Formats: sequence, C-alpha cells, structure tokens
Amino acid sequence: MIDIPERILLGPGPSCIPQRVLAALAKPTIGHLDPVFLRIMDDLRTKLRTVFQTTNELTLAVSGTGSAGMETVFVNLLEPGDTAMVAVAGVFGGRMVDVARRCGGAVEAVEAPWGTAFDQDLLIEKIRASKPAVFAIVHGETSTGVLQPVDRIAEAVHAYGGLFILDCVTSLAGVPVEIDRWGVDAAYSGTQKCLSCPPGLSPVSLSPRAVERLDRRKGKVASWYLDLTMVRQYWGQERFYHHTAPINMNYALLEALDIVLEEGLPARFKRHAEMHARLKAGLESMGIRYVSQEGRHLPQLNAVAVPEGVDDAAGRRLLLNEFGIEIGAGLGAFKGKAWRIGLMGHGATARNVELVLAEIREAARRR
Amino acid sequence: MIDIPERILLGPGPSCIPQRVLAALAKPTIGHLDPVFLRIMDDLRTKLRTVFQTTNELTLAVSGTGSAGMETVFVNLLEPGDTAMVAVAGVFGGRMVDVARRCGGAVEAVEAPWGTAFDQDLLIEKIRASKPAVFAIVHGETSTGVLQPVDRIAEAVHAYGGLFILDCVTSLAGVPVEIDRWGVDAAYSGTQKCLSCPPGLSPVSLSPRAVERLDRRKGKVASWYLDLTMVRQYWGQERFYHHTAPINMNYALLEALDIVLEEGLPARFKRHAEMHARLKAGLESMGIRYVSQEGRHLPQLNAVAVPEGVDDAAGRRLLLNEFGIEIGAGLGAFKGKAWRIGLMGHGATARNVELVLAEIREAARRR
Repeated sequence: MIDIPERILLGPGPSCIPQRVLAALAKPTIGHLDPVFLRIMDDLRTKLRTVFQTTNELTLAVSGTGSAGMETVFVNLLEPGDTAMVAVAGVFGGRMVDVARRCGGAVEAVEAPWGTAFDQDLLIEKIRASKPAVFAIVHGETSTGVLQPVDRIAEAVHAYGGLFILDCVTSLAGVPVEIDRWGVDAAYSGTQKCLSCPPGLSPVSLSPRAVERLDRRKGKVASWYLDLTMVRQYWGQERFYHHTAPINMNYALLEALDIVLEEGLPARFKRHAEMHARLKAGLESMGIRYVSQEGRHLPQLNAVAVPEGVDDAAGRRLLLNEFGIEIGAGLGAFKGKAWRIGLMGHGATARNVELVLAEIREAARRR
Repeated sequence: MIDIPERILLGPGPSCIPQRVLAALAKPTIGHLDPVFLRIMDDLRTKLRTVFQTTNELTLAVSGTGSAGMETVFVNLLEPGDTAMVAVAGVFGGRMVDVARRCGGAVEAVEAPWGTAFDQDLLIEKIRASKPAVFAIVHGETSTGVLQPVDRIAEAVHAYGGLFILDCVTSLAGVPVEIDRWGVDAAYSGTQKCLSCPPGLSPVSLSPRAVERLDRRKGKVASWYLDLTMVRQYWGQERFYHHTAPINMNYALLEALDIVLEEGLPARFKRHAEMHARLKAGLESMGIRYVSQEGRHLPQLNAVAVPEGVDDAAGRRLLLNEFGIEIGAGLGAFKGKAWRIGLMGHGATARNVELVLAEIREAARRR
C-alpha cells in the first residue's frame, strides 16, 4: 500500500480534506446508471445551486478538474469567429485567453498589472465599446491573491446580448459568489479549493441565457467529452449515457457540499475573512507585505513577498520537509518573488494560521 | 454521510473495486507538486508501461474518464483536414468517428455488422487503398462484446507513414494488449474496467512515432485541458504545472496497478478466459445465446440475448433490487435485445459467475 504523508495544505489548492470527505470517497463504487447514483446526481445539482446562489437548471459537476470546467464553458459558448473579451491580471486570466483562442474565438485581452483588481467602470466602458459575444473574468485570481469585484458587469454585457463568464475556481465557498444576483451566465469552479474536496471535478452552472446560446449553436461543440448538449442529457431526466462519471469523486463532492451547507455560507465566509485578517496581522508584524493590492485581498489566498533574506525554494522546502506544511510558490510574474498561503475551506483555522506563522518565523530565523 | 449499497458490479463497468484500492483512494490528499506525489506519478508511468507492454516514454494517466482518453488521442494526433479511417462495429467505434470529426478530421468509417469482428485482411486492403493519416479501431467493443484481432494492422499503416490508434478501454488487463509488439502508436484505456479502479482517469500511451507527429503539428491542440504538448511537461522531468491532477484517483490507480502486477498479466488473462468459459457454459445450458460472433467473444464482456420471455428492464431491475447485482443493458442496435455481463478484473471470480447464473435462472423462472 502506498505511503502518503499527512500534509497540512496551505497552498493554492488542493486544500485540507475533512475525514468525512475521504470516507465518502472510499464508499463502494456503484454503476453510473444505478438509481442510487442518479439520486446522488440530483442531490449534487440541488446543493451546487445553493452554493452558487443560483436557480440555474443547468448546474452540474464536469468530470475533470477546474481547468476542464474553464474549457467546458468556452468550448460550449464560443463558436469559431465569435468575439471574446477576457480580463487578464494573472495566470488564470491568461489561461482563459489561450482556451478561448483554441475554441476559435477572436479574443481581446484587457490587462491590468499583476496583483491589482480591475476598475469595473473601466471594464464596463471597454465592454460597451467592443460588445464581445462573451466577456470573461476571474473572480479570485489564484496567482495574485486578488478578489475582483464583478457585481456591475452583467448589465453592460446583457445590454447588447452578450454573455458574462465568471471563473469561480478559488472563490466559491470562500467568499460570496452570487451567480443570479450578479447576472453571471456561466460559472465554473474546482472541488479542491474552498469546497475542501480532492481535485477531480468541476462544478459548472449556466444561466437560461447561456443555455439559449448553446441551443442555437451553428456547429457541434468541438469537444465530445465536454459537450454540454450531451452531458446535460445524462444529468437531466433523460439519463442518456454519455461517459462513465467519476462515481467516487461525486460521493466526495456531495459530502463536501453537505459540510459547507451545515456550516452555512455566511458563517463560512466570515471564518475565511477572520482567518485572513489573523494571518495578515501576523505576517505584517513580521514585516512581510502582500503583493496584492490593499483592499482587494482574496482572503483564502494570501500572496505575499518572500520574506527578506529567505531563499524562495529553500524556505518552502523547509516548511514541507520539516513541518509537513505546503505553501505555494509564486507563478508567472511572481515566480521566485511571492509565496501563496492558502486558507481554504477546512484549512482556514486559527490553528493553521498560528502554525504557518510560527514556521515562517522559523524559516526567517534560519536564513 | 451518504449511504451507498454494496453492489456486485457485473455490467460493462465500473467493475468491482478491491478494498485495497478504495483504501488508497481515501489516503490524505497532498499537493500536485509534492515530491511524494511526483514519485507516485513516476511509479504510475512505469507500471502503466508494464500493463500496456510498451517502452513508450509518453505513457501517463489523463485526468478524465476513458472517453477523455479517446479525445486526447484524436485531438493531439489529428489536425483539421487530416484523414482518418475508423472501423465501426459498435457504439465506441461510432464514438471515435464523432470525436475525430469534431477534431476537423476527414473521416472514412469502415463498417461491420454489430456483434462481429473485422477481417484484418479486409481492413489492410482498405488501409492500403486510402492511406489515412490515422487508422483507429476498438480492441474490445464494450457494446457488442467482441474482441478484435489487431496484430497485423500496424505494418500496413506504417508502410506509408500513418499512425495506428487502438481503443483499449475494456481490453487492458483483461486480455493481452501488446502495444509495442503490435506496433500501436496511440492507445488509451479507462480505470474502471479490468484494472478495477473507480472511474476518473484514462491511461494513455503514445509511441515515438506518434510523439513525432505531435511535435510537428502546425497548429495548437484545440483542447487546452488535453494538450499533451503541455501535459507531458508535467508528467516529465520538467514538472511544469499544467492543471491540478486528481490526486486521490492517482493513488487508487497505483494501488490497482500493484494488484494487477502482483497477480501477473498471464495469470490475469487466464483467469478472465476461464471465468468467461464458465459463464458461457452456464448460460448456454440455460439456452441463452451470445449476440457476439462465435470465436470472437470478449471474455470480460459477455453480450447475450435477453432470455426468452424475460422483460429486459424488469429482469435487470430484479437482479439489481433483489440481489444487488448490476448487469448492463444493450446499447445502440442491441438496445432492449441484449444483456451485457461483465467479468472484469476483481469481479471475474467463480463466485460471481455462479451468482449471476443463479439469478438469471431466477429471473427466467419468474417471467
């Protein structure tokens, strides 16, 4: 039997997984058309809607990790030649540009400096000028630790019939994500961040407006595996076999959603905010500064400058090997310059905050 | 906690999962760049090579189910306008046609009646005449229970520089699959059939010839998620982050491969053949006939006519609800006419054979 160390995962995800979720994962596998599994799928859809704060009928878990969710949204909603505007201020905004271009989209990237959030008024101005078929932005940019305000974008996008795509991979279940109130037409997330479930599924939700776009596609969706015109007939009442769902991962997601809903969304958001404040106070008392814009910190992903005099890789290695704690390296423009400390879902506890602070202090002492 | 019944899975997959594999699945999640996980990935690659009987460097587990493996192979090896010849004698051959067309391939489908295997000489003739950029065929057609001989195809395909794609979703680890000896350039499988691991990953292997084709692509791979030019840099020594791998599913696959290799491939193939013979004798003694061609039965997937006088759905429901045994319905041309009895991996035991025979007898008695 493989030997796995017990890490404390305080990086950009995967996050710490509750025992209950691991136990659900290990329940016996049943068939993908077993009536018991079909009930689990229905239950998943209902609970995903609650977490996404939406009534969207087309809400389900795509059989791949968060990036598969991103691809699902673009490959289904964009047709070759369609225009897309993508806001880019980090790795995941950049990934959306790449994905949209591979779908044949004519992509206009709007950029902001790494570590900053976009000014919504400026975005709205650009949207009104270009009228892209879809406008896409990352809600919580995992590479920079920035939370992007997005509550006023939909109006501008919907005014001319466009669709609003929101990447909620890191934001969902850690900060408020209000799909219906914000007018989001397509949202996707990952299981391994604030839902505290192992990676392997991507919750996706499409508004009726997005479904209409899907229904009037001229051509087939380029990806067979991610084709929602077929996948929805498996998750819907038709129960048409499409592909064999990752059965056990779906058990785990249901258990993870139950834990989220038992705590309640408001309490969960409050806990993430409080743990972030506690971590921030501790880091600042050590003179460690955030690389993300003040006032726009993503509570569950703290991107901070590597402590002065500490070697990036050696510091992280010390934390991992000596203390069994994983924190994340910088990505892209922040490579070698930033550490990413995640306080996601089950991992956002006072104990973990104190622990990571103590060990960063130790790493700095040993420099 | 969700309540899952203990089914005996004797359908087309997922198959029965050993407790060891479920226990591995529930080990604590660690990071996708943790040195321990990187060692697991290396170990997976080595063991997948053994099971595929190949030395192919580019052998890995794609982060999706078997159909994602199919799409991975086509989307990476076909470019828009490339010609593809696909042999179709069941649902999964048909699925390859659909997938190849979505990749922009100019597809020629070669058909054979459902339940029959192709004559290799006939295929070779067609390959020589059309010289398709890729030739693809299903090794074990899960919808018809036919095992397709494929040992002489590669020579014809390679003669003019084509690539040979083999779908091994249901065949791998149940019957001999000899990627190198047969000259297969791209093979994919699923974890939930004869490997007896839950669904969620797709083992994929590409020959150096296929890798060369990948390297000289003119355009980017249409799918970001399945783009092997990037995925291989995560599985290779570069360790470039691409997407967050389904960590726990990879633990489970490694444990499942260990179990396969502890038994040994020859012993495993022999067990599948013996259990198939035992089931067949029992079914025939009840007057139940196979819908697949005599001499071409796929041992791990027995497609037989629904017993005379028994209602298809009611019979399967009886087995599931009263005895907790899942068998598969007919698909496509066999819908309502055939049952598919899987004896895959961990599930291919004398106990299960006797059990399913007894209960089919009971279903026939109650008709």
